[in-house]
Amino acid sequence: MQQDNSGSYRVRVYYEDIDLGGIVYHSKYLNFCERARSEIFFSKGKSPVDGEYHFVVKHIDADFIASGHFEELLEVRTEMTKKRRVSLLLTQSVYNTDDEVKLFEMRVQLVCMRGEKMAAIPAGMLDVFE
Amino acid sequence: MQQDNSGSYRVRVYYEDIDLGGIVYHSKYLNFCERARSEIFFSKGKSPVDGEYHFVVKHIDADFIASGHFEELLEVRTEMTKKRRVSLLLTQSVYNTDDEVKLFEMRVQLVCMRGEKMAAIPAGMLDVFE
Amino acid sequence: MQQDNSGSYRVRVYYEDIDLGGIVYHSKYLNFCERARSEIFFSKGKSPVDGEYHFVVKHIDADFIASGHFEELLEVRTEMTKKRRVSLLLTQSVYNTDDEVKLFEMRVQLVCMRGEKMAAIPAGMLDVFE
Amino acid sequence: MQQDNSGSYRVRVYYEDIDLGGIVYHSKYLNFCERARSEIFFSKGKSPVDGEYHFVVKHIDADFIASGHFEELLEVRTEMTKKRRVSLLLTQSVYNTDDEVKLFEMRVQLVCMRGEKMAAIPAGMLDVFE
Repeated sequence: MQQDNSGSYRVRVYYEDIDLGGIVYHSKYLNFCERARSEIFFSKGKSPVDGEYHFVVKHIDADFIASGHFEELLEVRTEMTKKRRVSLLLTQSVYNTDDEVKLFEMRVQLVCMRGEKMAAIPAGMLDVFE
Repeated sequence: MQQDNSGSYRVRVYYEDIDLGGIVYHSKYLNFCERARSEIFFSKGKSPVDGEYHFVVKHIDADFIASGHFEELLEVRTEMTKKRRVSLLLTQSVYNTDDEVKLFEMRVQLVCMRGEKMAAIPAGMLDVFE
Repeated sequence: MQQDNSGSYRVRVYYEDIDLGGIVYHSKYLNFCERARSEIFFSKGKSPVDGEYHFVVKHIDADFIASGHFEELLEVRTEMTKKRRVSLLLTQSVYNTDDEVKLFEMRVQLVCMRGEKMAAIPAGMLDVFE
Repeated sequence: MQQDNSGSYRVRVYYEDIDLGGIVYHSKYLNFCERARSEIFFSKGKSPVDGEYHFVVKHIDADFIASGHFEELLEVRTEMTKKRRVSLLLTQSVYNTDDEVKLFEMRVQLVCMRGEKMAAIPAGMLDVFE
């Protein structure tokens, strides 16, 4: 839940995150990254859902590098790499805070929606990532 | 996804359902039971969400009897035990289909809502459980 | 992730926790409570999984009192109500931190396992809840 | 749970799959695809976990094309596009069965592990995808 100014967010690995293999279930990293994106908004006193405006995930390109385990404290680091009129490109990485090993990295494209249509990102939502 | 007339529903245990202990994560049984309730509606050509009307879980009394494991095919059996004006009491049990061992049983109270207020269950939603 | 000495744990409601009804999916409260139990161990420098010893949920009696919503910061409060040789009875409640409204309360019975058999709770795991 | 010979698998969208936006939570498509891969094994009388051998997800490149909604019956279609000594490349697509609209497509690289080390895919696991 901790979100500092530099765009990092910490998440603990719990029972529910582990899969049959004893490691973090692969799609959970996408959840952790979404939580981190939401906390960036909250840390600025804003919300990722602003009236009719919100973001949807359009594309993900993800590398699963190493495994997370129960009890580990992970850190999600988020960086904006491209800003367009209706979309954002972010790079989000997940590290084990103990040994600074990178477990996961993804490039994610977010598209701004107004209701069910694509729309230009409102200024008030855009400056959150700066 | 299979739902026959007698109120039974089959669910496979996947990677995502297993927790650190190598067994089905405890709260997943509640998910399995909710899926089974939804399928009862679908099997009658109806939906658990009918306009403003829907059900919320109000109370659960649950026994975790034995453990489910990866690859097992489970069966959720649902029985209506009490019908009131605004609420239903169901008993839902989860069995391993291989050996007929009961893994889980809960008594669940559902309350009918119209928007954000409790409301009498519409006739068309009530007869689904008969 | 925050866990203070008095047994309270804070959890944010994210996109993934919300269901069709726009409120926290009912079984997620069990997840939040499990995370809180794990953090009680971590906060004492211990783990809920100690060699072959671990706990399983045996019984839950749960009241769903009010609804949690996106962005809300919830607090799980945990109290041990009964201590037996092989089992513990805890009461766990979930509050909205903004207005102190109680959303959820459950009585949960945990049973200590050594591998696949019930076992007396080791002293080092028992004093965690004191 | 239905898996036919041509590599298609059907999954219903339930309450738990929907997020704040009223649509299927983005990472759930990865779960649906993993279930489909597991069912391919089960449909051939095999398991994705064979002694020490199992697969891990190494890379995902995913397009989120359209939104899934509650009650919809989706179909996951799986095709093997490349077979290497230690890894497989699959393309998995998720369709709405009502209107044949494609909601999601991903290219996923799976790596075979023997315990914690990469290993050549055993013949008995490889022919499952043929």
